[in-house]
Amino acid sequence: MTSGLQSTRGALALRFIETRERTEMLAAPLSAEDQMLQSMDDCSPTRWHRAHTTWFFETFLLLPRGVPAYCAAWAPLFNSYYEQVGPRHPRARRGVLSRPSVSEVAEYRRVVEERVLSLLEHATESELVKISSILTLGFAHEEQHQELLMTDILHAFSENPLKPAYQPQTLARMPLASSAPELLTYIPVEGGLVDVGAAAEEGRFVFDNETPVHRVWLEPFALSNRLVTVAEVRGFVRDGGYRRASLWLSEGFAWTQANAVDSPIYMRVEGDDCLVFDLSGERVPCDAEPAVHLNYYEADAIARFLGARLPTEFELEHAGRAAPVAGGFLSDFLCPNIASGSGLQQLWGEAWAWTRSSYEAYPGFATSEDALGEYNGKFMVNQRVLRGGSYLTPPGHVRRTYRNFWPAHTRFQASGVRLARGYP
Amino acid sequence: MTSGLQSTRGALALRFIETRERTEMLAAPLSAEDQMLQSMDDCSPTRWHRAHTTWFFETFLLLPRGVPAYCAAWAPLFNSYYEQVGPRHPRARRGVLSRPSVSEVAEYRRVVEERVLSLLEHATESELVKISSILTLGFAHEEQHQELLMTDILHAFSENPLKPAYQPQTLARMPLASSAPELLTYIPVEGGLVDVGAAAEEGRFVFDNETPVHRVWLEPFALSNRLVTVAEVRGFVRDGGYRRASLWLSEGFAWTQANAVDSPIYMRVEGDDCLVFDLSGERVPCDAEPAVHLNYYEADAIARFLGARLPTEFELEHAGRAAPVAGGFLSDFLCPNIASGSGLQQLWGEAWAWTRSSYEAYPGFATSEDALGEYNGKFMVNQRVLRGGSYLTPPGHVRRTYRNFWPAHTRFQASGVRLARGYP
Amino acid sequence: MTSGLQSTRGALALRFIETRERTEMLAAPLSAEDQMLQSMDDCSPTRWHRAHTTWFFETFLLLPRGVPAYCAAWAPLFNSYYEQVGPRHPRARRGVLSRPSVSEVAEYRRVVEERVLSLLEHATESELVKISSILTLGFAHEEQHQELLMTDILHAFSENPLKPAYQPQTLARMPLASSAPELLTYIPVEGGLVDVGAAAEEGRFVFDNETPVHRVWLEPFALSNRLVTVAEVRGFVRDGGYRRASLWLSEGFAWTQANAVDSPIYMRVEGDDCLVFDLSGERVPCDAEPAVHLNYYEADAIARFLGARLPTEFELEHAGRAAPVAGGFLSDFLCPNIASGSGLQQLWGEAWAWTRSSYEAYPGFATSEDALGEYNGKFMVNQRVLRGGSYLTPPGHVRRTYRNFWPAHTRFQASGVRLARGYP
Amino acid sequence: MTSGLQSTRGALALRFIETRERTEMLAAPLSAEDQMLQSMDDCSPTRWHRAHTTWFFETFLLLPRGVPAYCAAWAPLFNSYYEQVGPRHPRARRGVLSRPSVSEVAEYRRVVEERVLSLLEHATESELVKISSILTLGFAHEEQHQELLMTDILHAFSENPLKPAYQPQTLARMPLASSAPELLTYIPVEGGLVDVGAAAEEGRFVFDNETPVHRVWLEPFALSNRLVTVAEVRGFVRDGGYRRASLWLSEGFAWTQANAVDSPIYMRVEGDDCLVFDLSGERVPCDAEPAVHLNYYEADAIARFLGARLPTEFELEHAGRAAPVAGGFLSDFLCPNIASGSGLQQLWGEAWAWTRSSYEAYPGFATSEDALGEYNGKFMVNQRVLRGGSYLTPPGHVRRTYRNFWPAHTRFQASGVRLARGYP
Repeated sequence: MTSGLQSTRGALALRFIETRERTEMLAAPLSAEDQMLQSMDDCSPTRWHRAHTTWFFETFLLLPRGVPAYCAAWAPLFNSYYEQVGPRHPRARRGVLSRPSVSEVAEYRRVVEERVLSLLEHATESELVKISSILTLGFAHEEQHQELLMTDILHAFSENPLKPAYQPQTLARMPLASSAPELLTYIPVEGGLVDVGAAAEEGRFVFDNETPVHRVWLEPFALSNRLVTVAEVRGFVRDGGYRRASLWLSEGFAWTQANAVDSPIYMRVEGDDCLVFDLSGERVPCDAEPAVHLNYYEADAIARFLGARLPTEFELEHAGRAAPVAGGFLSDFLCPNIASGSGLQQLWGEAWAWTRSSYEAYPGFATSEDALGEYNGKFMVNQRVLRGGSYLTPPGHVRRTYRNFWPAHTRFQASGVRLARGYP
Repeated sequence: MTSGLQSTRGALALRFIETRERTEMLAAPLSAEDQMLQSMDDCSPTRWHRAHTTWFFETFLLLPRGVPAYCAAWAPLFNSYYEQVGPRHPRARRGVLSRPSVSEVAEYRRVVEERVLSLLEHATESELVKISSILTLGFAHEEQHQELLMTDILHAFSENPLKPAYQPQTLARMPLASSAPELLTYIPVEGGLVDVGAAAEEGRFVFDNETPVHRVWLEPFALSNRLVTVAEVRGFVRDGGYRRASLWLSEGFAWTQANAVDSPIYMRVEGDDCLVFDLSGERVPCDAEPAVHLNYYEADAIARFLGARLPTEFELEHAGRAAPVAGGFLSDFLCPNIASGSGLQQLWGEAWAWTRSSYEAYPGFATSEDALGEYNGKFMVNQRVLRGGSYLTPPGHVRRTYRNFWPAHTRFQASGVRLARGYP
Repeated sequence: MTSGLQSTRGALALRFIETRERTEMLAAPLSAEDQMLQSMDDCSPTRWHRAHTTWFFETFLLLPRGVPAYCAAWAPLFNSYYEQVGPRHPRARRGVLSRPSVSEVAEYRRVVEERVLSLLEHATESELVKISSILTLGFAHEEQHQELLMTDILHAFSENPLKPAYQPQTLARMPLASSAPELLTYIPVEGGLVDVGAAAEEGRFVFDNETPVHRVWLEPFALSNRLVTVAEVRGFVRDGGYRRASLWLSEGFAWTQANAVDSPIYMRVEGDDCLVFDLSGERVPCDAEPAVHLNYYEADAIARFLGARLPTEFELEHAGRAAPVAGGFLSDFLCPNIASGSGLQQLWGEAWAWTRSSYEAYPGFATSEDALGEYNGKFMVNQRVLRGGSYLTPPGHVRRTYRNFWPAHTRFQASGVRLARGYP
Repeated sequence: MTSGLQSTRGALALRFIETRERTEMLAAPLSAEDQMLQSMDDCSPTRWHRAHTTWFFETFLLLPRGVPAYCAAWAPLFNSYYEQVGPRHPRARRGVLSRPSVSEVAEYRRVVEERVLSLLEHATESELVKISSILTLGFAHEEQHQELLMTDILHAFSENPLKPAYQPQTLARMPLASSAPELLTYIPVEGGLVDVGAAAEEGRFVFDNETPVHRVWLEPFALSNRLVTVAEVRGFVRDGGYRRASLWLSEGFAWTQANAVDSPIYMRVEGDDCLVFDLSGERVPCDAEPAVHLNYYEADAIARFLGARLPTEFELEHAGRAAPVAGGFLSDFLCPNIASGSGLQQLWGEAWAWTRSSYEAYPGFATSEDALGEYNGKFMVNQRVLRGGSYLTPPGHVRRTYRNFWPAHTRFQASGVRLARGYP
């Protein structure tokens, strides 16, 4: 028992250190100036992500256990949206703060980490259950911000006419010049009354929005063997896809017109030439790579253009029930399974797949009463579910039942298109 | 056969005349000035509703059959959102048109009606099937605009400090001074794998978005015996409901703050006093009357305040499977079943019930290719389904499978709250 | 003495009746629907102009003398900007009011007119001085609204794709097909220390902003012999004038870009073709007619394009000191002096001339303390002075010292360009 | 002759070095993060000011003389508003650039400085005249940006709830705790036909907007002996000044209401307590210090509240004709002449005095054709002239004829109030 506890402590500490180090590793190539950038309201500065993830552990783990605040005046600056824990600096103004500085934030991280590890080391057995639960939520939370840190700096860099690269060599997606895109086919899946969702059981973290397990009825359907590629999206653009109202949801077409949109956010198509902008700067894409950074309107129109529709979240969850959750995650930035294998490829990693499922509570879902209960439930309107993770998702973060969600107009996330056919 | 055809012709003509006359009857109390009012982008002038419903029959029935346009230059003015049939005057500027005048619109209605009836009379047997299908859609379409005509003029009048009444006596909702609200209880409903949706079969009109019949799995649930009342909403307001973030969806609370909302749109609560504004002007409400003109954010918060949740659209459809579709519709403006009976009351009429269901395509839904195919499918994002009809819905318009839909922020519709408990 | 008073009474009554009748005559061609139109915040519905000018006499003449309000509830609806006399309906929402109706407004006008005439008839000698002063201000005020009534309905009609005409024959500006524009020349004027402004003396109405007489130093200058013509503006458009930043004030060029402006508001230039929209509908302009409905940015850029500058208000006032105030005013809608005579033509009427003078208080200007003191002084920032009147100005309204003023971006007024050279 | 040239070279080099060093000195207390801040569109990051002033010398001095660009790709980033010299990064997005970095900008400064000094050293006699003219304009330009650098960082810091100080001790304005404000009196000045403006003569720099010398007629007037103090503005706030419409220009009062303004931008008044925010952080002000950071609307209302008016620019220029241009400039941040002396105090430094003069061209003003001709003329609409310099103006920058200008709503500049009475 004691040794079991010790091993729990050890595992938690190790996971904590690893998670925290990954954040620092991702921020490392960015200068103090880079870490100040907030290019739109939906994005936050790197500096802020580093501080906010620290504030999370401090606020929900340390403060309730009597550890004094590192600096109480900072709390409103690094609270994101938790109404119950006090006031918040306006989200859109996070880029207008230069103090605390990047190095003060680094020191804040260091001290809070020491305090968390010390708390963990000295916690009693009975405390450990609750601490473990908060820590595990904190890991998932910090991993989400790792992905945001990357999408946010990508958006900020895309505004700079100098087209800066996050890191030219190491972390860039590899252009797969030699590989041709695999032929698009559809793989049938049986429907029926199937179980979806996750059980909230001890020792295995899931977000509240994934619970509980419940039954849904699925008609038979078919999924495309792979994600939609850059080459296919380029075809959509060249074919006047952005000007053909009949391909679009009404709200989506209005969005293209109000914003003069004629191509995906990080893609430039001129005649036969096409350039994409990513963390390695601007480059010629390879045809086989999955298209990313599309919003729901675009995904829906591209699916219609290709004679298909977007899947529901449960179709994807059910279709992936037997596949190991492995693929092109943040660890390698590679696209290893683009051109290989058989069956459903790229179910995990590469690009979050937009689903036609609105983000709603599962039957029996209950929001907890405490501040952490604000986590997911209060966003359940006007959002679409995305599934599967992306090339910017930390490895180990997603599950088969994992539900990401964004408003339909969101372009800056690493979101792409999986096609479906048949019912519904 | 011939006599059957004749009776079809007769029935269609009768229904056409009745529908058209109801529009005129509803517009009759409104002056030329009143019929110019457009108080916000979502609303249209009475004059426009009268012309647009006429344009619909002309464009989709007469023009394709060789009948020349009454006035071709008017087409862009009265096209609502059909991209395929040409350009459109900007929606928000419908109130800035004074020509054609109200009496020119009346003449336009008269001439098109004559032409439709003549077409109907002389149609061959083979033409009659298609004509019947277009006409029936046109009836449903015009009935929708009858409800909009009423909600739009109500909104416009609410802006006038003189608080004008549409028609003080005849059409106003009756204050039920003597009736006390029925006790709020919950009625359990069994779940299971149930059929929902409607079949597209000849001779019976349904909208495409109601089709096809399909199966969904429902867990057991319970519905409130009646709609939420004005008295309950007044309690929500007095209890600081509009200032308590924990009751609201995040987007909803942001909406209250951005718009300084502290009560329902047509309700003024000051201390113990409460006034509502409706088509009879400003008046003291009776406690038992159902609350109307709430948006989804408000409905969701009020349900949470009352310890419940909003139902799904399929819970409502399933629960109402055995109840005759009858209740407080536009015909009488009365609230006949408020205080009587047992079981589920007010399932039909009185107030559209917001559901937690996002407005999505049913499995197997297919949009048709022609212009009328734009009817419903292209709005399937960022909308919530409402069920049951309201005190402003023409009698005969709704069905058990009928799906109304509006964005979550919409306040000016006659939408209220049915409560649910248990799964989900 | 008594007979002198009687003649004052008579003259005032006559002027009152004439002024009021001209408003009605201008409104007469407009239907109830037309009189509802408010096409932008700066414009007001005809119905509102008719009521507001009535409210003015009631509020400042009748109410202070014990005459009860015709309808007290209407006061906030028809108050324009007088903070001291109570609340105001938001300016931008004047078009969202349908009650009181157009015929109720007509009755309001009739009753207030009777009361004013009765008051005038029974006033004592000592009262008459003050009454005369208020009435005279009221005449000038109503004349200003007569011009606005016309510019506002023109703007509203310009939004209607049917291009309605206010009155095709009678009141339209005559195309002067046969006349060629007079050669543009410059007429030198001596400067020096000159008197400008008007004395506030009994028996002769001037606005407070024209007072007092004071001295200014003028360097020698030259004025163009006539206003800039439509043909010259068409040349500016064809020469890419709207795209050449170097011709524009920085703020003006930003305005063209933010609003995608490439021609004057009521002028369409396509290749060699040019159409103008005015109160007679859309028509081919004659080359000789003065360009109207330009804003300050456009006027300034056109002057620069033509190698000149805009005059100051004192240059115009001084140059016009000997010319009788007569020309193309609202009475005839004609352009009688376009092609005739010598010297400075079109100093009065046709088009308000933009000046490079900011609208400021004259040395010694004092705002009075009462509500009517709000009349002019509080607008003295970010406005430009215009001089001379237009084809929509009632005859007798302007004086040599008369100062009109509008913000630089204002396009919908009948404002044009007189050129200047030399100092300054 | 040669030695004269040498001394010109030497003087220019010395002035160049001094000017450039002052910019660096002002930026020195600011971290890389601080130098990224852009808190509103009107402000620019420190990093940008440092680069833009360098770009100015490179673009107008080095490039035309064959010196290659340090980095051609940077040009659009650091061009402010010169349409003729190419495209520009949007002004509002200057804070969204992190590259080139702060240290790259420092290196850019260093290299361009070397090149300028080298050019100066090797210029021929004939080249030197033109070079001297550009350099001298460059000095004035960089001094303007020095003041902006300070006002911009002050605004950015004011948004941070931590209330950071630019530099607590050295550069902060000294609270003059012991000094009482001098009694407010008015000093009469004779009018007449007076010369204003500056001659454009060799060897003495003036901006084009100060030229030429010309005559204006001034009526007799009186100026307050000193600037309006913080204590007087506090009295205005406490007396409900921000809520009394009669004190305000109409546009100004609308501005207070639209922005919920109830005190000056950097002043917090609560009951008897008053705090000001400046470059030393938040502090209790001394009563005698001049009020700063007021906009024109506020200045005009405060003057009216104090029974006076704002002066014209020529009243100030004429009144200051005999006073040496010395006072509280950026060199010391002190308020040396607050409580001493007699006559007109604080004519120079402390706070820019708003004038009721619109910013217009002087008679005979001519804009030059080259890119530098864009300097001033194109801003001549909707701006007010300010005179005298401020505590943030570099010493030696202003002249008696110097004209600063800003739109009426501008609050973040170091602008205050000098009172006037009598004509006008």
